[in-house]
This record gives sequence, C-alpha cells and structure tokens, in this order.
Amino acid sequence: MASLIDIKSGVSVAPDGVAYPVPSLEEGAAHFALLAGRAAGRRVVVVQGLGFVGSAVAAAVAAARDAVGQPLYFVIGVDLPTPSAYWKIGKLNEGCAPIASPDAEFDRLVALGVGEAGNLCATSDERAYELAEAIVIDVHLDVLDRAVASAAEIEVNIAGLEAAVRVVGRRMRPEALVLVETTVPFGACERVILPALRREREQRGLVEPLLLAHAYERVMPGPRYLDSIRRFWRTFSGIDEPSAARARVFLDSFIDTAAFPLCELEDPVASEMAKILENSYRAANIAFIHEWTLLAERAGVNLWAVVDSIRVRQGTHDNMRYPGFGVGGYCLTKDSLLAQWAARHLFQDDHRLAVTLEALRINHLMPLHTLALLRELAGGDLRGKRVLVCGVSYLPDVGDTRHSPTEIFVDELARAGAGIVVHDSCVRTWEERPHVTLTSDLRAALRNAEAVVFAVPHTEYRQLQPGDFPAPLLLVDAGNLLDDAGAAALHAAGHRLLGVGKGHWRKRGYHS
Amino acid sequence: MASLIDIKSGVSVAPDGVAYPVPSLEEGAAHFALLAGRAAGRRVVVVQGLGFVGSAVAAAVAAARDAVGQPLYFVIGVDLPTPSAYWKIGKLNEGCAPIASPDAEFDRLVALGVGEAGNLCATSDERAYELAEAIVIDVHLDVLDRAVASAAEIEVNIAGLEAAVRVVGRRMRPEALVLVETTVPFGACERVILPALRREREQRGLVEPLLLAHAYERVMPGPRYLDSIRRFWRTFSGIDEPSAARARVFLDSFIDTAAFPLCELEDPVASEMAKILENSYRAANIAFIHEWTLLAERAGVNLWAVVDSIRVRQGTHDNMRYPGFGVGGYCLTKDSLLAQWAARHLFQDDHRLAVTLEALRINHLMPLHTLALLRELAGGDLRGKRVLVCGVSYLPDVGDTRHSPTEIFVDELARAGAGIVVHDSCVRTWEERPHVTLTSDLRAALRNAEAVVFAVPHTEYRQLQPGDFPAPLLLVDAGNLLDDAGAAALHAAGHRLLGVGKGHWRKRGYHS
Repeated sequence: MASLIDIKSGVSVAPDGVAYPVPSLEEGAAHFALLAGRAAGRRVVVVQGLGFVGSAVAAAVAAARDAVGQPLYFVIGVDLPTPSAYWKIGKLNEGCAPIASPDAEFDRLVALGVGEAGNLCATSDERAYELAEAIVIDVHLDVLDRAVASAAEIEVNIAGLEAAVRVVGRRMRPEALVLVETTVPFGACERVILPALRREREQRGLVEPLLLAHAYERVMPGPRYLDSIRRFWRTFSGIDEPSAARARVFLDSFIDTAAFPLCELEDPVASEMAKILENSYRAANIAFIHEWTLLAERAGVNLWAVVDSIRVRQGTHDNMRYPGFGVGGYCLTKDSLLAQWAARHLFQDDHRLAVTLEALRINHLMPLHTLALLRELAGGDLRGKRVLVCGVSYLPDVGDTRHSPTEIFVDELARAGAGIVVHDSCVRTWEERPHVTLTSDLRAALRNAEAVVFAVPHTEYRQLQPGDFPAPLLLVDAGNLLDDAGAAALHAAGHRLLGVGKGHWRKRGYHS
Repeated sequence: MASLIDIKSGVSVAPDGVAYPVPSLEEGAAHFALLAGRAAGRRVVVVQGLGFVGSAVAAAVAAARDAVGQPLYFVIGVDLPTPSAYWKIGKLNEGCAPIASPDAEFDRLVALGVGEAGNLCATSDERAYELAEAIVIDVHLDVLDRAVASAAEIEVNIAGLEAAVRVVGRRMRPEALVLVETTVPFGACERVILPALRREREQRGLVEPLLLAHAYERVMPGPRYLDSIRRFWRTFSGIDEPSAARARVFLDSFIDTAAFPLCELEDPVASEMAKILENSYRAANIAFIHEWTLLAERAGVNLWAVVDSIRVRQGTHDNMRYPGFGVGGYCLTKDSLLAQWAARHLFQDDHRLAVTLEALRINHLMPLHTLALLRELAGGDLRGKRVLVCGVSYLPDVGDTRHSPTEIFVDELARAGAGIVVHDSCVRTWEERPHVTLTSDLRAALRNAEAVVFAVPHTEYRQLQPGDFPAPLLLVDAGNLLDDAGAAALHAAGHRLLGVGKGHWRKRGYHS
C-alpha cells in the first residue's frame, strides 16, 4: 500500500507514532480500483467511520461466515483522507486493528480479514458506497461542550452527521440498507438522516423506497471488546417493515442471536431513546452514589462496605455503584445531553431532564472531590507539591483515555500549582494531555513523590507492597485499592491517608 | 382475655371493625401476672411495637426452634394501651395476625404461637421488658410532613423514639440485648438511643456494659411477608464487639442464615445508613424513569417496551423501573428525608442530597401526571365528571394503602370537582380516606363511570374484557394493563385512551 501514497498530500500519524501519508486523489483512485476489483461479485458491506466502534464492527462483520464456512461479506471500512483520520485506513490495510485493545480477538479478526480471508480492507474513496448492499453508519457525533450549565447551551454537531449521510445518499445503491449505529439524539433517524438521504436520492431520481434502520451498539472497551458486538444483546428498529426486516437479517448474520435474541422496537425514535436512556441510567446511578459518598465520609462510614451489604439484593440493588474517582468514556459523559438536545430541537419539548442532567453535572465535578481530599491532607496548599497521579484511563486495566476524569483532576491540580507526574501502564501516550509527564516507572515515581493519588483501580496498584512507599506520603485512595489493614500499616509507618467513601479512615484518624 | 377488659378505659377498634376494650391498670396487671407466670423459666424475647414489622417479627421469633424442635423463646409483643394501638394486642392474643396479609404463613405462625406452641402473646404492660433476654425495637418513627420543600423543614419525631427506648432502659435486665430494627436516621443508635438508655440505666445504678445492636428489617408486604424476615438477607452491627456477637447469635436463631448469611457492618451508623440508602436508591431509580416517561410520551415512544429492551442487560440495567402511577408505602416515601435530617441534626453536616431529595419530590408529584392525562382527555375540565379510580393500595395484588399515591391523586381530583368512586378488591376499608366512596362492584362502577383510571396493576384489572366497558369512556392506563391490541380495540369501540409512558398511543391518536 505504501507505494500508493504521495507524501505531498500530508501525513496522518497514528497514536503509536507510525506515519501514514494521505494519498493524492489519483493514488486513492488507483487503490480503489484494485479494491473494487477484489469486491466484484461479492456481497459488500461498507462501514462508515473506523473509530472505536466502526473498526470493531468491520472486523465482526468480516468474520461472518455462511453455512459452509465461507466469508459472507467483503467488508470495506471508509474514513476520511485527512491527517487526523487517515492513519486508521493505513493501519487496517496493514492488517492491524486501528484501536489498541486488550482483546486479542480484535487483532486476530482484523489480521484474518485483511490477510488469509481477504475480505476486509479500508479506503477513503466514497465510491465504496456504490458497491454496498449494506452501509453501516459509525461516524462520530459529539456535543461541543460536555460541561454545559443549561439545556439551552447544549450543542450537537448534527450538521457533521448530516454531511456524512449525504455522501452515502449520493453514492448508495437504491436498494442498499443504511443501518445507523452511531449514538444519536432520539428522532435523528426520522428527522435528520431520513430527509438528508431522501434529498440526495431524489436528486439522483431514485424512486425505490429507502431502507433505513437503527441498531445501536453496546461496544465496551476491554478484554471482551469484540464479544460486546458479536455476543451481546442488540436492539434495532426500522423506519418501516421492509427496513426492519432487512436489518434483522443483516444483524443476524454476524451476531450470535441464538444466545442473544434480537430485540425489535417500534421505530428508530424508540431505539435511539433506548441507547441514551440506558447510558443515562448508569450515569445517574453513579451520581446518586457520589452524593452518599460525601455523606458517608462526614459520618465516618465505610461506604464501600455498605454498598457491598446492599448489593446482595439481586435484581433490585445489585447494580448499585461504588464510590469512586469519576466517570469517563465517550458515552456516559455526554449521552444525556443528546436526550435533552433532542427534546428541545427535534421535538420542540421544553421538558427539562432535571435529575438526569444534575447527575451529569455531579459526575463531571466528581474528581474535584478527590482533589479536595488531597488538598486537605496538604493543609490547604498544593503549590509546589510533587503529586503522582496513578491512573489516566477511565477503566481499570484498560488504556482508554477518552474523557477520562483524570483530565479534569490534573487540570485543576495544575491550577493549584502542584508539580504533576502521572502513571498508567495501560496508556503509552496520553493523547488528550500530551504536555503532562507520563512515567512508566511506578516505583521511582513513588520514591520521588510527596503525594500520591490512586485514581483508577488498575490491578498493578493493588499489588504494591508497603516497601514501595518509602518516604511518608500524602495518600488519597479513590478506588478502594487499600484495604483497612493496609491503610492501618501505612498510617503506622507515617503516611497520611484519606479515601473516597472511606469515612471510617477519617474516624480512625488516618489523615493526621 | 375479654373478661379482663374494662370498657370504661376506652375502646380500641381494629381495621376490621372489631372493638377491643382497653384494660384498666388493674386488669392489665392481672393479665400480666398470668403472662409472667407462663414466661417463668423461659428465654423471653420482647418485641416493642406490634405494627407492620413488629407483629411479623414476633411471629418469626416465636417460630424459632431448638435442635429438638422445641420453641426457643417465649415471645411477648408490647404495644400501647391506647385506643389507636390496643387492638393489635387484642388481635394477637386471640391468635390472629394484627396485619391483614396475603401471606398465610403469617396467620399460621401467629395461630401456632398463641395456640398450640403457647409461646406468643401480647401486653401493654411495660414490666414485660423485665423478663427479656432480648428486646427488639420495632416502634414507629416517622417524619411529620413527607412533602417538604427544603432540607430545613424536615422534622423527625425523634422524641417519640427516645421516649420509647427510655421505657426499655427503665425496665430492662442489665445484660439484655437491645436490638433496634426501626428505620432511624443514621447516627440515632449511637447519638440518641444509646445516651437515652444509658441515662435510664445510670439512674438505676447499673454498671454492666450495655448491649445495643442495630439490624434493620427488609419486610415486604405481599405473599412472602414472613419470608422477607426469615429467609432474606440481614445486615447488622453492634455498638461494640460483645453487642455484635449477641446480635449475631440472636438473628441466627430465627433467620435462615445458611441460605442468607448475615452481613455485619462496622457500626450502627453504617447499618442505619445502609437501610436508608437502599430505599433511597430505589426511590431515585423510580424518579429517574419518570423524567423519561414524560419525554417518551411527547416523543411518541412506548417507554414500557424500551425499558424491557434495556432490562436484558443483567447486573447493570435489569432493575430499571417501568413508568407508573406513583410511589407509595411507608419507607420509600420518607427514608431519604431521614438521611437529610441525620446529616443536619446528628452530624452538623449541611451537605444537601440534591438528587436524592429531588427524586422524592418527583415521586410525590408523580400521580399528578396521570391526572394531567385524564384532564387532557376531558378537554381540560373535570368538574362533575364521574371518575372511577381503580387501585387504592400501592402494590399490585396487595392491600397495603400506607402513603398510597392514590391519596394524592384523589385529593387533587376532588379539588378539580370530579365525582369520585374508587375500587380495590384488596382493600376493605381505605383508612386514610374514609370519606371516599369505595365500591366492590367493579363492573357496575365501570357502567356508571364517564372516566376510568387504572392506577394499580391488580391482576383483576388485567382480566377485564372489552364488554366490561359499555359506554364510551375516557381511559387512563397508568400501569400497562392494556396491551396495544386491547387499546386499539377499545379506541375502535369509541373509547378515548392515554397511557403513562405510552407515547405511541398518542402518536396513533387513541386519545381523540
């Protein structure tokens, strides 16, 4: 592939530092001609957007097999020929998963599809849509600012989504299925995407009915990344019965629907709302427990143990959240905003989601509580303090840093004048905060620090021994990494500790 | 027993209409002498408070057996010799459960304990505490007004609780265990009950350490009433290790701890908080979904189906609540207020439980949404409309009317000038609203009504047939009693319908 690339068009650098020159139009065209030749006579599926979801969906669809074990589809991933996006195409065409993941199945399926099976590739050429019997929309749709103060301030880049689907409308075959997986404001399929596709198709004189469906993904980073697509529950809907029927057959072809039967909802508004609702529910449950975290700390209660005692009630209370450092990730930090925006802009409904939005606000500010504990240990002044922050990703033992609460924590810590070093073995480069010192030597960092904050409960931190904490430190445990015996030993050795949700430590005087 | 009673002391009338004369002091004393004679040489447990929890706990403790099948304890229930309370003593001493319940096991255990086993009785004589090795506190503790606007307005009848435990302190044996089951503000055991007991014991010159523990109940009305005590999870704590040890042995003697191991927390503040937290969690989850109910109705979405589609996610989303009419019962409507009161009054903590209290407010007002749907169907004016409200209790197929949302609904409906008839086969008399017409003839009531509201999803309502709705009615379904086919048929027959969480009915025009 590399020979096709003209470096004059710019270079796209992957997170691992490898540079992929963006091809010129001519080079792209030549590459596409090869690709189209390989696709000829095959059933083609195009995935629009090769990000966190799209690249994994492309691998999952490429792994679908027919009754005799042959690949069902020739899968083409499409992304933009821009410096910020093209590297995903470059990576995939080399047989590498564009997203680093602890799930080896992802790497295996990409390598298999690009290599031996020969039914997976990527391009930036929009003529790919002309080849497809099904086009899966996995483009990015974000809000402009997640820390908004009022419902009126929420801005969704709906024009970007519209532009992406218009390209599809201009190129798609009349009878192709368009399946939207992107998390969108409810109403988007019927009120934004459908009109946009129709306009483009009408300009082409297409009279065939449009097949449009919505089937939201529940992709989770971590060791079961691919399983979260192929072996998990899937809800879908169509704008009409033929669309729903096509979506059902397509989803059934790459999802283990014997174990996880598909769930069909009445229309895309319902399934769009379902996705946002389920993430908002999780976010609200986290915010709820944060309120009680503050209460428990002041009343001298170990909220971790209290939550454990309540979670025995299966079916009603077993999903109660634990205290913690904060909420991160692409979805939980913004999906509720999509709901409020949808109500206002797509349904002219002024109803305010009071509890739902308050939850998002609480979650956004949550890391500042850990900062308050640190500040208290430091006697109110963090200026010049050498602080080690352990954990940059937003999930234990996963390297995903998107909208990590450590961002908010570190920004505020810098404002307080502290000297900051962060550590996270799962994260090679912290894309969102490249200027922050990221060390890979945990023990050396512990030796050099005056204060340590355990933000993320990575397994590695659980394995630290008392000897790893040499000089007396200020220690804040936001992730229940230290048990009571460990905390008592550290306190006896001269360290001073506070823990999120650990009111009993305060009662025992571990902080002084 | 009846011969011991002096009607000059007043009469206590049970909910079923049976009158129990309150005994004079002399009569009470004579009765107690008999009782004390029977208790002599036995291990006595006294339960203070024979309400919804205490009477069932008394029956459960009386059912405890030793290794050779003999009753472990002689159980005495204590309540007040007042017209409002004495009937519970009268009922129990007749071998009848004081609380009507669909759980036959409750009636059976009371009859067995009072009759054949001869180890269960009740008295209003406080000398009963002198006989006990364990005293279980199940007295009522309520807030004055559940619909408070601010944290500062919350008033808890803590003086009433204090007075009740002082009686125990004046009478108890030095080494008896006091086990608090009443739901109390966190901190109450250590900061209210412990000092009150100590003061009384010091006046008696007792020097032995006090044994005080907290073990909150999770009693649920319904067919598994007794199982919710004997075969369910139990969390406890002691004010010190000896107290916790005694509590563990006692709880183990009447709870199936092989199937449901006991959970011990560090101190009573933790276990008191656990009880309030778990109920607040449930209440918050209900309020959360109500927000989305309003959203779904305006967007034309069937939220019932959406919630079903999400609840497949076991362990994270399977306890998501459905839309509904409202929240009732003794606990969920007030426990969050106890938390806020405890923070303020027992811990001098001004932290406001914003999400938790907002949830309570939303739940309190929830039935008014059903009223808004009814008003909409009636063209805005309910004056003179004959409205049948189906469901008075707060749970399906259970007759418990405590703090039922139908109360709030009916009060507001009356204010709107409607003529009201209510129906509930599970409820013989509606104690909280005795002036409201309660009919037992559902079909006649349907014939006479102009509008019908299904508030509670009693099974009986599910069994109604189209023919049971003769004249065209205004119908509001708040409990998903009608499926879409049933709704379509009723609409075709001239009825006009709206449903809570049923936006798709509105989209289909069933309301016009």
